[in-house]
Amino acid sequence: MTGVYEITPIGRVESPLLERGMAPRQGDEGAPDAWLAFEPRVRDGLQDVRAGQELLVLTWLDRATREVLTVRPRGEGDRPLTGVFSTRSPDRPNPIGLHRVRVLEVDGLRVKVGDLEALDGTPIVDVKPVLGQVNER
Amino acid sequence: MTGVYEITPIGRVESPLLERGMAPRQGDEGAPDAWLAFEPRVRDGLQDVRAGQELLVLTWLDRATREVLTVRPRGEGDRPLTGVFSTRSPDRPNPIGLHRVRVLEVDGLRVKVGDLEALDGTPIVDVKPVLGQVNER
Repeated sequence: MTGVYEITPIGRVESPLLERGMAPRQGDEGAPDAWLAFEPRVRDGLQDVRAGQELLVLTWLDRATREVLTVRPRGEGDRPLTGVFSTRSPDRPNPIGLHRVRVLEVDGLRVKVGDLEALDGTPIVDVKPVLGQVNER
Repeated sequence: MTGVYEITPIGRVESPLLERGMAPRQGDEGAPDAWLAFEPRVRDGLQDVRAGQELLVLTWLDRATREVLTVRPRGEGDRPLTGVFSTRSPDRPNPIGLHRVRVLEVDGLRVKVGDLEALDGTPIVDVKPVLGQVNER
């Protein structure tokens, strides 16, 4: 029942955030702009990404701890221990980060985005559009 | 630069949707209710999941094709070929599915959710809360 699947990064984050202590909890809490640097092999998949769009960036939070199942939300010691699936803690069995960002600039395989709380070097695993209403899809 | 990361499923989807031809494009386009059946080892991570909550379920779309970089959106032949990172196609380099659902019922390791377009047997890889406003986190 529990096969294992392999994720191969499609790129990396380039950010001034170098370690967890520097990062805000979420992108809309004061995160800096960052560059997404994609691998040449996924170039065709990026061909419709444009400045001004909102995207969901999925990352592999490679500095997270995978053995954790309960945390105190936002690292605040006075909050009760909470199941990780009810929090956005990076520490969780499969540490996939989900980041909603706006595209600021596209330069070939490099995409500049606003307000990204992921650390420098974080692997990018997928990018998706934000879905509009059903009749706009 | 391109290490590989291993995803170990935390559960499986139980759904009446047995193959891709049966599934709607998105959960809000007529998808059925489904059960999320979790592994016993992640029980503590689920302890705060309750009926009525909205959750993001992340899956591994194990019947997708990973070599595809451009698709016609929604499988409609009159749409232009589009980079997969600008679509929600299941076919993409790392086929992670992102599903926003409402919890209908919790029965131990089994969680019933509404409007899930994932196929029966699809591996679940993560669950996250929908984020509220900054001052509600």
